[in-house]
Amino acid sequence: MMTQLTNHPAWKALNDHHHEMRDLSLREELAHEGRFSDLSRVACGILFDFSKHLANKETINLLVDLAHAAKVDEMRAKMFAGVKINNTEDRAVLHTACRAPETAEVVVDDENIIPFVHQVLSQMEDFTHAVRSGEHKGYTDEAITDVVNIGIGGSDLGPRFVVEALQEDGSGPKVHFVSNVDGQDIASVLKKLKPETTLFVIASKTFATEETMLNAQMAKDWLLKSATTDAIPKHFVALSTNAKGVKDFGISLSNMFPFRDWVGGRYSLWSAIGLSISLAVGFDNFRKLLDGAHDMDQHFQNAEPKDNVPLLMGMLGVWYRNFYNYSAHLLLPYDVRMDKMAKFIQQMDMESNGKAVDREGHHMSYATGPLIFGEPGTDSQHSFMQWVHQSADVVPVDFMICKEPHHALAANHASLCANFLAQSRALALGQTLEEAKGDPSRVFTGNRPSTSIVLPKLSPYHLGALIAAYEHKVFVQGVVWGVNSFDQPGVELGKKLAKPIKEILEGRTPNAGMDSSTSHLINVLMPR
Amino acid sequence: MMTQLTNHPAWKALNDHHHEMRDLSLREELAHEGRFSDLSRVACGILFDFSKHLANKETINLLVDLAHAAKVDEMRAKMFAGVKINNTEDRAVLHTACRAPETAEVVVDDENIIPFVHQVLSQMEDFTHAVRSGEHKGYTDEAITDVVNIGIGGSDLGPRFVVEALQEDGSGPKVHFVSNVDGQDIASVLKKLKPETTLFVIASKTFATEETMLNAQMAKDWLLKSATTDAIPKHFVALSTNAKGVKDFGISLSNMFPFRDWVGGRYSLWSAIGLSISLAVGFDNFRKLLDGAHDMDQHFQNAEPKDNVPLLMGMLGVWYRNFYNYSAHLLLPYDVRMDKMAKFIQQMDMESNGKAVDREGHHMSYATGPLIFGEPGTDSQHSFMQWVHQSADVVPVDFMICKEPHHALAANHASLCANFLAQSRALALGQTLEEAKGDPSRVFTGNRPSTSIVLPKLSPYHLGALIAAYEHKVFVQGVVWGVNSFDQPGVELGKKLAKPIKEILEGRTPNAGMDSSTSHLINVLMPR
Repeated sequence: MMTQLTNHPAWKALNDHHHEMRDLSLREELAHEGRFSDLSRVACGILFDFSKHLANKETINLLVDLAHAAKVDEMRAKMFAGVKINNTEDRAVLHTACRAPETAEVVVDDENIIPFVHQVLSQMEDFTHAVRSGEHKGYTDEAITDVVNIGIGGSDLGPRFVVEALQEDGSGPKVHFVSNVDGQDIASVLKKLKPETTLFVIASKTFATEETMLNAQMAKDWLLKSATTDAIPKHFVALSTNAKGVKDFGISLSNMFPFRDWVGGRYSLWSAIGLSISLAVGFDNFRKLLDGAHDMDQHFQNAEPKDNVPLLMGMLGVWYRNFYNYSAHLLLPYDVRMDKMAKFIQQMDMESNGKAVDREGHHMSYATGPLIFGEPGTDSQHSFMQWVHQSADVVPVDFMICKEPHHALAANHASLCANFLAQSRALALGQTLEEAKGDPSRVFTGNRPSTSIVLPKLSPYHLGALIAAYEHKVFVQGVVWGVNSFDQPGVELGKKLAKPIKEILEGRTPNAGMDSSTSHLINVLMPR
Repeated sequence: MMTQLTNHPAWKALNDHHHEMRDLSLREELAHEGRFSDLSRVACGILFDFSKHLANKETINLLVDLAHAAKVDEMRAKMFAGVKINNTEDRAVLHTACRAPETAEVVVDDENIIPFVHQVLSQMEDFTHAVRSGEHKGYTDEAITDVVNIGIGGSDLGPRFVVEALQEDGSGPKVHFVSNVDGQDIASVLKKLKPETTLFVIASKTFATEETMLNAQMAKDWLLKSATTDAIPKHFVALSTNAKGVKDFGISLSNMFPFRDWVGGRYSLWSAIGLSISLAVGFDNFRKLLDGAHDMDQHFQNAEPKDNVPLLMGMLGVWYRNFYNYSAHLLLPYDVRMDKMAKFIQQMDMESNGKAVDREGHHMSYATGPLIFGEPGTDSQHSFMQWVHQSADVVPVDFMICKEPHHALAANHASLCANFLAQSRALALGQTLEEAKGDPSRVFTGNRPSTSIVLPKLSPYHLGALIAAYEHKVFVQGVVWGVNSFDQPGVELGKKLAKPIKEILEGRTPNAGMDSSTSHLINVLMPR
């Protein structure tokens, strides 16, 4: 709905409602027994408790009105149907097609892409089986014990998060991740491995990403210290769209797993980019991850707006970002296996909606995507939670926990659950001067909002559903704010400016034409 | 300077100056050749380039005036002298004494504490030597190969960051870290280890921290599956002040490394809490870490205000937080070994200055500590940097890099340096519509400030100096805002509320007296 957003009656109604809500006390609201059932929802077996938000049923109705006015439903239908909603790059947005059943039909440029999706899935299934069974052998005829995923950004964070989250389902080779161009990253991984039992998965859509290709080259050099070039096809596979680049590198095209331009990097773990997940936990578990995500897709498309979890998550974010002016959002999984979740969602959300202009190229007059951060609880309670409780800035929180742990330590799990519950309760209710026994430094204002999310357990299915819920949340917000959530011009600017600086640092051009700071810093950093 | 802060002439002068600076263009400023030398500083061999800030010499002068008006120098003298500036807990603040030379004298409660500091350092040196040489043996007479540090918050994040940062100096046993009460944390570490060659370092000031004691108990149970209780003194040491608790656990008092209440958790890596650092990299390297920090202490105490790096870092933070209303601060080390830096500084800064009331107990009318976040570059360029370049929210950045890497991969390092330089340049200069060839989605406003920090290399000495610079930065800001940076009432509220919930979850009391949300969530999470 773009530039007229703040002039729309649905926006104005929320503005009026926001003024009425100024006196809302969560302590009073939560004293009503019915509040939990009024404001909690279930999707794909996951509980989302919205009852600790600065919201009531009226708020939900008005937020749903705004979503409708912003044509979220229309845009959602376009996305699932393969319309090219990534307008600056003229691309469809179809990570959802990667998890659609074989019977589905999604047409892009006159082709039903579902057979392609399932053909790649078959290729992944066969290769996963070959590696995990030991049938695929290295150049000394030994089985593969270690996999190194070399990719960056979207080709790294999704698989890295999921492989760690599903560690208890890990039964195949150990999977390592290398992303950074800092040579230390690959050096410290390689020194633990043996070339004859290591498989490199090179993940780069273009097969030209600077970091990834430098690291892939290093990996090849390392292999070739002990092997001949015949070994390359046994130790390297590619997740890419660039067949020529893959072939030139020495990788067999039968070991190239393709994907298409309708899968964006930060939404790509469901595509060929998920190969390292499949290798780590087995293809059946990878399939369950896709199934969970697909069920959340169905929920997002079919549930009534007032019961639609990704829609509500997204609209509550708009409520806080634009009406309360809260500028950040915190993720707190009470589960160490979800250590990388905040890092992964940080990319998904901030790269998608951290934009300055709307889809029509107008500079926006309102704030868009928030700053996303987070760490697992209870660690964070001994770190930045002091700030979350008492800072001048209020930050809405998503608390997450699994009802069933994968271990048998009952005392630990009871303590984890108690802390999970105590933090959201403390944020909502605060502590009065009387409760603080007259000590003003222990007064907490309360009224700090949060969602509590309870997964039955950290199964591939539930993890897939949870990730898809966040993807759709980001989508909903992008539509309301009128941004294209699927491009990333800021990434390209950095690449453009790095090129001439690298030429100077490598002595290929003189240090000229730079600003005062850059020019002097180049002198400092120039190798002697 | 407390409640009168915003009425002070120095504050008002900055306010006026802020209005004058509204039209400042970093693109124009950085075109002047002299800007780098005017606005960059060196401390302990580390370069801090402040020339890409929304500041000129006049800004620096006015910020120094405000620091003086807020009596930063007076408070600094009190801190170093052992005055009890942690007023709510009636404690001195003397992490600086942990790195002072033997000849120093710092008196607390009529005792010169320096001999105590050096006695503990000797004890750490001897024990480190015994473990690393193999002289200290496990219950089967084998040497120690693995150390597990069990602690949380301040007893975890500092050592965890430093051990990883100095990984290239690692030559002793492999050090692992367990912090979270989630049983998965310790379970996944223990399954890689053998009890007969594992040493547990239990880090808890009170020896009563819930998470730490649950995990320590699990470690003991694990050892006692294969050993008798005689083995405990060989496999457990304690970093604590609670001799009775340590003895009751079965740890020999000669293996208890003490510290005192004048070392706060988030400032404690220089004390006995640093034992796991010393075990990982050797005592000589630990000593160099202390030396670097001590040299930064000297710089902070003696350098002229306009050349005083921690003072300038702190005051530039005040400038952005209170005059520009920027609410977050980003740390971007271009070095994968510094992966945990943001997490560590996040605790140090947010737990220290994320407060609602000043030292006199008055609710503050101005914002205090910012939200701290970060990840290593270049990874972050493929993640949230899009948002940093184009979001409505401006976030000042600290970029960090080492001139000399620890590896020999020249192409990787040149690429790393080029990207490091390109990002701060892109943030400062932006990209005009003309440079973007008329595409509005590629327009960047620029004027986004950053500090570039260049370390000669990631040596223990320079790392110690860098950490101390951040400690003093946080101190300076706390003094200006008038908060006690050394307590953490928000941590205690969570503990207080968790207790009754845990009793309900364990079936010891009925589910009564809770709010609607908590009560229903307890029912969901109750074990069947």
